[in-house]
Amino acid sequence: MIKIGVIGYGYWGPNLVRNFAEIPGLMVACVADLDTKKLEIVQKRYPGVKTTTRFEDMINDPTIDAIAIATPVSTHFDLGMAALKADKHLWLEKPITQTVAQARQLVDEAEKRKRVLLVDHTFIYTGAVRKMRELIKSEDLGSIYYYDSIRVNLGLFQHDVSVISDLAVHDFSILDYLLEEQPIAVSAVGINHFPGTPENLAFITLFYDSGIIAHVNVNWLAPVKVRQILIGGSKKMITYNDLEPSEKIKVYDKGISFTDDPRKIYEMRVGYRTGDMWAPQIDGSEALKIEGGHFVDCIVNGKVPITDGLLGMRVVQLIEAATRSMNEHGRSVKLKGMPMRHGSVIE
Amino acid sequence: MIKIGVIGYGYWGPNLVRNFAEIPGLMVACVADLDTKKLEIVQKRYPGVKTTTRFEDMINDPTIDAIAIATPVSTHFDLGMAALKADKHLWLEKPITQTVAQARQLVDEAEKRKRVLLVDHTFIYTGAVRKMRELIKSEDLGSIYYYDSIRVNLGLFQHDVSVISDLAVHDFSILDYLLEEQPIAVSAVGINHFPGTPENLAFITLFYDSGIIAHVNVNWLAPVKVRQILIGGSKKMITYNDLEPSEKIKVYDKGISFTDDPRKIYEMRVGYRTGDMWAPQIDGSEALKIEGGHFVDCIVNGKVPITDGLLGMRVVQLIEAATRSMNEHGRSVKLKGMPMRHGSVIE
Amino acid sequence: MIKIGVIGYGYWGPNLVRNFAEIPGLMVACVADLDTKKLEIVQKRYPGVKTTTRFEDMINDPTIDAIAIATPVSTHFDLGMAALKADKHLWLEKPITQTVAQARQLVDEAEKRKRVLLVDHTFIYTGAVRKMRELIKSEDLGSIYYYDSIRVNLGLFQHDVSVISDLAVHDFSILDYLLEEQPIAVSAVGINHFPGTPENLAFITLFYDSGIIAHVNVNWLAPVKVRQILIGGSKKMITYNDLEPSEKIKVYDKGISFTDDPRKIYEMRVGYRTGDMWAPQIDGSEALKIEGGHFVDCIVNGKVPITDGLLGMRVVQLIEAATRSMNEHGRSVKLKGMPMRHGSVIE
Amino acid sequence: MIKIGVIGYGYWGPNLVRNFAEIPGLMVACVADLDTKKLEIVQKRYPGVKTTTRFEDMINDPTIDAIAIATPVSTHFDLGMAALKADKHLWLEKPITQTVAQARQLVDEAEKRKRVLLVDHTFIYTGAVRKMRELIKSEDLGSIYYYDSIRVNLGLFQHDVSVISDLAVHDFSILDYLLEEQPIAVSAVGINHFPGTPENLAFITLFYDSGIIAHVNVNWLAPVKVRQILIGGSKKMITYNDLEPSEKIKVYDKGISFTDDPRKIYEMRVGYRTGDMWAPQIDGSEALKIEGGHFVDCIVNGKVPITDGLLGMRVVQLIEAATRSMNEHGRSVKLKGMPMRHGSVIE
Repeated sequence: MIKIGVIGYGYWGPNLVRNFAEIPGLMVACVADLDTKKLEIVQKRYPGVKTTTRFEDMINDPTIDAIAIATPVSTHFDLGMAALKADKHLWLEKPITQTVAQARQLVDEAEKRKRVLLVDHTFIYTGAVRKMRELIKSEDLGSIYYYDSIRVNLGLFQHDVSVISDLAVHDFSILDYLLEEQPIAVSAVGINHFPGTPENLAFITLFYDSGIIAHVNVNWLAPVKVRQILIGGSKKMITYNDLEPSEKIKVYDKGISFTDDPRKIYEMRVGYRTGDMWAPQIDGSEALKIEGGHFVDCIVNGKVPITDGLLGMRVVQLIEAATRSMNEHGRSVKLKGMPMRHGSVIE
Repeated sequence: MIKIGVIGYGYWGPNLVRNFAEIPGLMVACVADLDTKKLEIVQKRYPGVKTTTRFEDMINDPTIDAIAIATPVSTHFDLGMAALKADKHLWLEKPITQTVAQARQLVDEAEKRKRVLLVDHTFIYTGAVRKMRELIKSEDLGSIYYYDSIRVNLGLFQHDVSVISDLAVHDFSILDYLLEEQPIAVSAVGINHFPGTPENLAFITLFYDSGIIAHVNVNWLAPVKVRQILIGGSKKMITYNDLEPSEKIKVYDKGISFTDDPRKIYEMRVGYRTGDMWAPQIDGSEALKIEGGHFVDCIVNGKVPITDGLLGMRVVQLIEAATRSMNEHGRSVKLKGMPMRHGSVIE
Repeated sequence: MIKIGVIGYGYWGPNLVRNFAEIPGLMVACVADLDTKKLEIVQKRYPGVKTTTRFEDMINDPTIDAIAIATPVSTHFDLGMAALKADKHLWLEKPITQTVAQARQLVDEAEKRKRVLLVDHTFIYTGAVRKMRELIKSEDLGSIYYYDSIRVNLGLFQHDVSVISDLAVHDFSILDYLLEEQPIAVSAVGINHFPGTPENLAFITLFYDSGIIAHVNVNWLAPVKVRQILIGGSKKMITYNDLEPSEKIKVYDKGISFTDDPRKIYEMRVGYRTGDMWAPQIDGSEALKIEGGHFVDCIVNGKVPITDGLLGMRVVQLIEAATRSMNEHGRSVKLKGMPMRHGSVIE
Repeated sequence: MIKIGVIGYGYWGPNLVRNFAEIPGLMVACVADLDTKKLEIVQKRYPGVKTTTRFEDMINDPTIDAIAIATPVSTHFDLGMAALKADKHLWLEKPITQTVAQARQLVDEAEKRKRVLLVDHTFIYTGAVRKMRELIKSEDLGSIYYYDSIRVNLGLFQHDVSVISDLAVHDFSILDYLLEEQPIAVSAVGINHFPGTPENLAFITLFYDSGIIAHVNVNWLAPVKVRQILIGGSKKMITYNDLEPSEKIKVYDKGISFTDDPRKIYEMRVGYRTGDMWAPQIDGSEALKIEGGHFVDCIVNGKVPITDGLLGMRVVQLIEAATRSMNEHGRSVKLKGMPMRHGSVIE
């Protein structure tokens, strides 16, 4: 039985505790938060779980095997490093750290100590994203032309990180998982509508060597919640609506056929193809529960998580580059290749 | 009775003829097209209408009062100028011309000859866009924060102009009409997925001096048709879904309240406000029919069209600048102010 | 070239004329209506078409081959019989007549004179209904369990016939076409909310010998328009949403598996099966155009229409029986078998 | 602190325990179930809660103040009566009992012992239903014309009660709460598609003295989940879509105006009125949590629950009458008035 301690019982922490409590082989031993009101809620809900306002107690407790950190990103590096140095396995909320350099240090420390380091890019563990990867891998879609995501809603305004760190980060991880190709450049624009706050709306475009273009529209100030991704391929196309209770993924047998016959240069060289639509059945399990099981599996069997520290680091590189481009009103920023493990799947 | 000749019976021409035929005071006298197959269709549908493959006959016909041009944009300038020089009133499909310089010449020629020059930016005449303008003018929305449009579908691929000229042009005209403020810079990225064709997918951002940001997502290669605009204001927000048969416009009494109290600098300074949603009834008349009536009214009563040549010229300036930015991978391109008439309304 | 005269240019007549005008081999020669205002509209739209307020002129005109009747149902029998007696082919709006006895006379007269008698049950000619028949015929759905239709909207209140004659009539014809089995009993309830008017809301249930149950919910006083049909089968199920611009038909690989093992009598004997959803591509042609072409084909090649007078008569039998049941607050009314041709398809 | 014991940890029991655990003043002391596997789940989730396979232990435990019963309906009467006789307050899942006679006995016993008896008609405690009642009470809708509900999905097939007891029961309680008028007759039809099982599909119509008609369409064998209610009034109309994450309730300023001027008897006497749509903000709290708080409030302050035993009894009367009508293929069954308390609101 792996005993885990959770630091932070704010917005996301309760979801971690609730899911961890259901996972075979995992036991929530302790919850830490600076706010005693929140610890009281833990006590009412889970009478058997210890609580503390001092995270050090948890880190120094030798009966604790793993630590999950669900605190603001500015604290990730220090808390994560302390946990690793105490030889704990580490579950870190996204984004892994504020900078690539910090991420690199955590990755190295985890490797040195042979500890599991999982970054909680939850979407990777949803049935929908796994199904999309399966479709892309099987070449059902043909060559990928574009990825176009809208991820908008009202709030939750954050005062320390921009909407890119909060929302676009999901697309950065999904793209990394789906395409197994890293972008070569990024152009981003954004705006903060309130003085002294981070950007609350941004539009980010990623360019890939293979010709793929990816676009991400994120906004904390939208009247409606939208979670919609379009993926266009040469053979088929996908829509992914995460708010749809069933049929989240729809595969369209639609596209165009293009002739590059030079004799047709003055004619229409594009033909349309419209066929059936198909919505594959999708595993509806809660992603966090699958992810928690995967974390246990990695610890017990010495595996590397699908959402490992390197994935976390690549995502931070994109956040940094997009932020730089945004500060320069859309100027394209080049990206260099980062280390990457290939082909992870959930078993 | 104003007699009108229509040049071009391809994709849009049939809509012009069908609507013109229903407008009191207007009579379709003649249709010109190079394709005799298309002229045969005209003859079966409208036995009383003359047809010709020679547009010059129509332009030289002294019984014709006005000419509507629904041909590829590359022909707009020559055909439009010929019509004006023959002292015809002129209805031009969007975009008015390929260049600002050409647009300027048409505007000047029309002014000199006191002819009506209407550019067919049809959306301006829809009940939905008119209602949005009414809401913005009445300050129901408060200060405008952003405009975010998605306008994607499969096809119609064009081989002479990019998706910006074809689809983003609608948003450029709507923005001009709604905001009565001109953007100061534009950043655009886009891609053509097939060699030798114009861009089939583009993302354009417009920056305004007042702090408004506008974003337009256009794509000819999407599996589903989307026509969705979000407008965020400090008091209320709008969604406009043009594919919704009723309730195209929804007004959300939602937003955030922001305190800039410096003592709260380390706390959350944003509060949420969510209230009712309201879908005002909208005039469902076909926009082209209203626009046709407006054209007649301008001719008969010497008025200037809401979608006059200057509006058409401002739109072309945006197309040109967005295209330049797109060629430079998103580099921000500055815009200079253009002449503008204020406050037109449909009476 | 078949010359057709259209009697009635009210709500549906304009659709007939517009579609007939596009059909090869068919020519609208004349339109009759008592309202000269409506005839003026015809003249502006179709300068070549004759108009008259005297339908007799049209019926007595030997150059007219066929008559389409789009007038209130109370006039169908007299007008239809007059047209047949003048040896015209006959296109009759639904329902064919007010009574089964009248329908029988028209059928006999048409047969005697070898004239084509088509009843305009338009839905039968839609791509969606044809696709559903194809799916049912191919036994993709397995045994049919039920048909459940909602057909509600605001208006058009009629003052001479109830909502059953106006709306449920569509389901009666679709059921006849899909199932090729006649119901054995009907139970209906309904209400008129305004004194002296026909029922504006009704719920009708049809019982079939094979165990199928069909339910139809019709309402002229609904705030939203709904056109939704569910069809449950032992293998698969269908939803048909006629207001959906694309993907009108969705086929669900969902159902239950049932064990009648008597040893399991105290346990749950039902298992669930949920699989993919599939939306077949559907012919999007305007149904009236296909129907018009079919009418021409029947006249020219001596065929019997899919929606022949017998189908029209069976539908009237259902209207009569449902109305009787409604007057007795839902008491089940038995139906006797009616003549039926099997297996018509659109070629 | 009120200590509650929960009998039954099958489908609904876990929701009760989870919500009760969050309610101030309420403590889940014990859970009983015959299945020890289910009790193990309780122990992992809630280490502090006692579990037992013997419900008698719970009923005989003097430290337990209240019992919640979430077992099959056939056991409600015996278990409920045992709990009341042990002077426990009683929370009973819907429907209260199998027969009106049993319900009457529970009501009398609770009254005699001055115990709170709440029947868990959860929908009454949703923000949406409370808002609809507010709208009806305020006469915003004018006179009510009809209530039309669709409540269909795939499963959960039950082997002891029909779909009426399972699903239509929700509408029976909502109607009782909204209208404060009892129906005078019911007509129902239904079918079981599998031998030896209860009806899995039914259509029920309720008739009211005031002219209101209510219709309920319930089906366990539908490929899609639908929870849609239309309410038509003389001034306004409502749609209530319970699956909509926001804007569950929409109020349409639509209707017809009717003239009964006898001189217009041969003309259209109905005019249409279409105006704005409005979606009021709705309390999104989980209904079970509100209901649990209400239960505590009734116990502590000696109040009568909104969903008291009398409401439960009236609902059972409707189930009995609808079942009788269904067995007679839709024959209308008269209802007699039942005792009713008026005007309960959630404080």
